[in-house]
Amino acid sequence: MSDHLLSTKGFTRDRGVALLDVAEDMADTQNRQVKKLPTLRGTTIVNLFFEDSTRTRISFEAAAKRLSADVITFSAKGSSVSKGESLQDTAQTLQAMGADGIVIRHSSSGAAHVLATSGWTRAGIVNAGDGTHEHPTQALLDAFTIRKRRHGDDSRGRDLEGVCVVIVGDILHSRVARSNIWLLTALGASVHLVAPPTLLPTHTEGWPVTTGIDLDEAVDGGPDVVMMLRVQRERMTEAFFPTAKEYATLYGLSVARADRLPASSLVMHPGPMNRGLEIAGAVADSPRSTVLEQVQNGIGVRMAVLYDVLAGERAA
Amino acid sequence: MSDHLLSTKGFTRDRGVALLDVAEDMADTQNRQVKKLPTLRGTTIVNLFFEDSTRTRISFEAAAKRLSADVITFSAKGSSVSKGESLQDTAQTLQAMGADGIVIRHSSSGAAHVLATSGWTRAGIVNAGDGTHEHPTQALLDAFTIRKRRHGDDSRGRDLEGVCVVIVGDILHSRVARSNIWLLTALGASVHLVAPPTLLPTHTEGWPVTTGIDLDEAVDGGPDVVMMLRVQRERMTEAFFPTAKEYATLYGLSVARADRLPASSLVMHPGPMNRGLEIAGAVADSPRSTVLEQVQNGIGVRMAVLYDVLAGERAA
Amino acid sequence: MSDHLLSTKGFTRDRGVALLDVAEDMADTQNRQVKKLPTLRGTTIVNLFFEDSTRTRISFEAAAKRLSADVITFSAKGSSVSKGESLQDTAQTLQAMGADGIVIRHSSSGAAHVLATSGWTRAGIVNAGDGTHEHPTQALLDAFTIRKRRHGDDSRGRDLEGVCVVIVGDILHSRVARSNIWLLTALGASVHLVAPPTLLPTHTEGWPVTTGIDLDEAVDGGPDVVMMLRVQRERMTEAFFPTAKEYATLYGLSVARADRLPASSLVMHPGPMNRGLEIAGAVADSPRSTVLEQVQNGIGVRMAVLYDVLAGERAA
Repeated sequence: MSDHLLSTKGFTRDRGVALLDVAEDMADTQNRQVKKLPTLRGTTIVNLFFEDSTRTRISFEAAAKRLSADVITFSAKGSSVSKGESLQDTAQTLQAMGADGIVIRHSSSGAAHVLATSGWTRAGIVNAGDGTHEHPTQALLDAFTIRKRRHGDDSRGRDLEGVCVVIVGDILHSRVARSNIWLLTALGASVHLVAPPTLLPTHTEGWPVTTGIDLDEAVDGGPDVVMMLRVQRERMTEAFFPTAKEYATLYGLSVARADRLPASSLVMHPGPMNRGLEIAGAVADSPRSTVLEQVQNGIGVRMAVLYDVLAGERAA
Repeated sequence: MSDHLLSTKGFTRDRGVALLDVAEDMADTQNRQVKKLPTLRGTTIVNLFFEDSTRTRISFEAAAKRLSADVITFSAKGSSVSKGESLQDTAQTLQAMGADGIVIRHSSSGAAHVLATSGWTRAGIVNAGDGTHEHPTQALLDAFTIRKRRHGDDSRGRDLEGVCVVIVGDILHSRVARSNIWLLTALGASVHLVAPPTLLPTHTEGWPVTTGIDLDEAVDGGPDVVMMLRVQRERMTEAFFPTAKEYATLYGLSVARADRLPASSLVMHPGPMNRGLEIAGAVADSPRSTVLEQVQNGIGVRMAVLYDVLAGERAA
Repeated sequence: MSDHLLSTKGFTRDRGVALLDVAEDMADTQNRQVKKLPTLRGTTIVNLFFEDSTRTRISFEAAAKRLSADVITFSAKGSSVSKGESLQDTAQTLQAMGADGIVIRHSSSGAAHVLATSGWTRAGIVNAGDGTHEHPTQALLDAFTIRKRRHGDDSRGRDLEGVCVVIVGDILHSRVARSNIWLLTALGASVHLVAPPTLLPTHTEGWPVTTGIDLDEAVDGGPDVVMMLRVQRERMTEAFFPTAKEYATLYGLSVARADRLPASSLVMHPGPMNRGLEIAGAVADSPRSTVLEQVQNGIGVRMAVLYDVLAGERAA
C-alpha cells in the first residue's frame, strides 16, 4: 500500500509491475460481471478538479463507485476557489469534512505534491494531472495497454523490457509524456521523443530518452509503439506553425505513415483526439490503434490505484 | 426486453400497453414505500446531456437510483465535447468505460438513433429528447397519466381507444408532440393538432392526425384531453407574433376556454410552464390539470424504460 | 422530530441542546469509523442550490450519504429556473418526483419558509442560507464547536450559559450573524456585535444583543469567542471603505489584536476566509482558531438535522 500516487518518477520496475498486476485483478472482476466490489464501502473520495476534464473525472468516478466508495465532485468553477480561496483552505476543508481520498487535477505543476506533503490533509492524494508535470494514471493505463496487447492473459508479472516507444507531439507541455517517460523506462522500455524543435524541452539531459524532430525517420525505425499526443490548438502560434495543416503534414500520423510501420506496431493516443490533425481518423480506428482499450483499461488501473492508496489503514 | 428506446414511432398497441403496465408495477413499489429495488445494482448509467434539462435529467437520475444503478452525469458543457470531440469519440469512450446504458439528450434530431445503430457502443440507448424529433419517455408518461386518470387502479392491460386528444402550440418544433402523436394513436386515441399556421408543419400527410388553427373550435369539440406545449419565447418572432400577449389571446388555454371544456376533460403540459402565456396559472392548478401527475408518473415510467432496456443480458 | 429547519429564531434552549446532542451521537459514529449509517436508506434528498456554495453543498452531500440517502443536486444554473420557472413549479416538480427532503439555498430572504409553508411540497425543508435572513445549520455547528471546545466529551446536555460572543463584520447582510444571534442567546450566551456604522443594521432594538463599532474595545473586553464574518469585497464601496487595507486595519483580526485576547478565547470564521482582510492568516491557523473544527462539526450537525427532519414518518 502506498500513501499517495503523485508521479511515476522514481517508480521501480517492481512497483510498476505490481500495480499493473493489481489492475489486472480489477479488470478481471469487471470482465466477470462482478461490477461492484465492497472494498471501499464507507470511503469518501473527492474529485477535486480545478481544470475541466470530463473524461478523467468520470473514469475516476466509475472506478470509485465500482469499489463502492462515495464520490463527491468538487469542481472549482463557481466554488469558493473562484472567489480566491487558497489550495490550503480547500484542502483543510476537505480534510475536516472527512475526505479519505482526493483525486486532484490542477493547472499548476506540483499541486498534487503540495497537497500530499503540506500536512493540510491526511487524505490519500491521487494526481489526475498537474500542469505540465505528471499524469501518472495515464501512464499506468498506457503501460497496462501495451503489456496487455503483447502478452494478453499471460501479462501478470511481466515488464516492458525491449519495447521501443516513440512519443510524438508537444512534449514541452505534456504531462502525459513526462509520466510515460519515467514509467515506461522503469519497466524496461526505450523511449524516443519526436517534436517540432519549439515544442521539445531544451533540457532533456537528465531524461532517459533519445530525441528527434523527424517523424518519418522515427516511423522508419520500426518502433513497437507510436504514442501521439493531443495538440492544443492554442499553442500552434507559439510553436511557429502558421496553420494546423502544416503541423499535420509534418507531425501528424497519417495513413501513409502508419502503413510504413511494422504490422505489430501499436498506435496510442490519450484522447480526446483531434482527428485529422495529430492523427488521421482511419489510423485512430484501425486495428493497431489502442485508443479505446486505453480508456477501458483506465477503469481497472484507477480501481487499482484507489485500492492501493485507500484500502486498509492509513497512517494518521 | 428491448435493446433501446429511441422513439415511439412504430410502437404497436401491445408494446405500448406492456410498457405502461411495467410502469404501473414500478409506481406501485414507490407507493408501497419500497423505494429501492435491487434490479440494476452494478449497472452504470450515463446521463449524456448535450442540452440543459434539469427536470429530465433528475427524473432519470431518480429513476435509476431507485433501481440501485450507479449514475454518472456527463454534461457537455466544459467537456471535451466543447473542445470539438465528436459524438463518435464520446460514445466510444463511454462504451470503453463500461457504460451499460446511455440516456442522451441532444439538439440534433436523430442523435439517439445514430448512437444506437452506429456500433460505437453496445450500451442500451434511451432517447431523452433529440432536436425536434422525439421525446419518447415524455409520451409514455403522458399516455400513462391519461390512462391512470381514466381507469385508476384498473388501468393494467388497457389502451386509449376512443380518447380524443388535442395538442396545442408549436407543433413544428415539438418533439413532445411527435412522440405523442405516434404513441397515442398506436394506443387507439385520436389526435388533433392546433397551431398557428406558421408553427404547423406543412407536411403532415403521413401523420395519423387532423389539424387546425382555431383553438376555440377545438375546445368546443369537447376533447377528452388538451395538451398544451411549452412556448419557446425566442420563436415568437419567427412565428410572426408581435407580442406574447397576442399569442396568449389566440393560443393560450385561458380560464374562459378551460371552462368551456367538459367537466371530465384533462389539461396536460410537459413543463416547465410559462404561466400566463400558453396556459393560465389557474388552469394549471385546477383539478383537471395533470401537470404534477405527469412529473410523478415520469419516475415510474422511466424506471420501466430503464428496466426494459437494461435488465437481463444484453446482446453483445 | 421536526418538520423543517428554517431558522434558529424561536429555538428554545432545550431544542437547541437536544439537537446538539444528536449531533454528538452522529459525530461519534464518524469517529468510530462507522462511516455509513442505514438510517435514511431509500430517502431522496435534493440539494436545491440557487446560489453557488460548494462548501455547504458538499457538506450536506457528505452528511446525507453517510446516512445512506440518495442525493440529487439541482443547481439553478442552466436549469428551467434560469428559463424563468417559478419556485412554486420547481417545488411542486420535486414533490412529484418524490423528494423526501429539500436542502435549499436561495438569494431571497424567506425562500425556505415559503417552500415549507406553501403546500407545494410535503418534503422536509432545510434552510441552507436564504438571502440575508438565516443560515441555521451554520449557527448550530458554531454552537456545537463552542460547546465542544469548552466541555469536550462532557458536552452532552450542556448549554452556553455565561459565554460571551463577539460577532464582527458585515452584520447588515449576514445570515450567519442572524442565525447565531438567535441560537447562541437561546443557549444562554451573550452576544455583542461589532461592525462599521454602515454595516450595522439600524434597527436592532428587538435583538437580544449589544452593539458597537470599535473592535479594539470589544477585544479588550475579553470575550470567550470572537466570530469573524466573511467580507464580500463587492460591498466595500457600499460601506464607504476606500480600500480593503483600511477595512483590515479597523476591523480585521490581526495578530496584535488576537494576542490581547485571553488565552482561552476562541476565534471562529464560517469560511471561506479572506486571509489578510478580515482575519490574519496566522490567527486563522493558531490554536485558538476553530475554523477547521467548524467544518468538521458541520458534517455531524447536518447529519443530525437531516435525521431530525427526515427520519421516521413524515406528516402527509
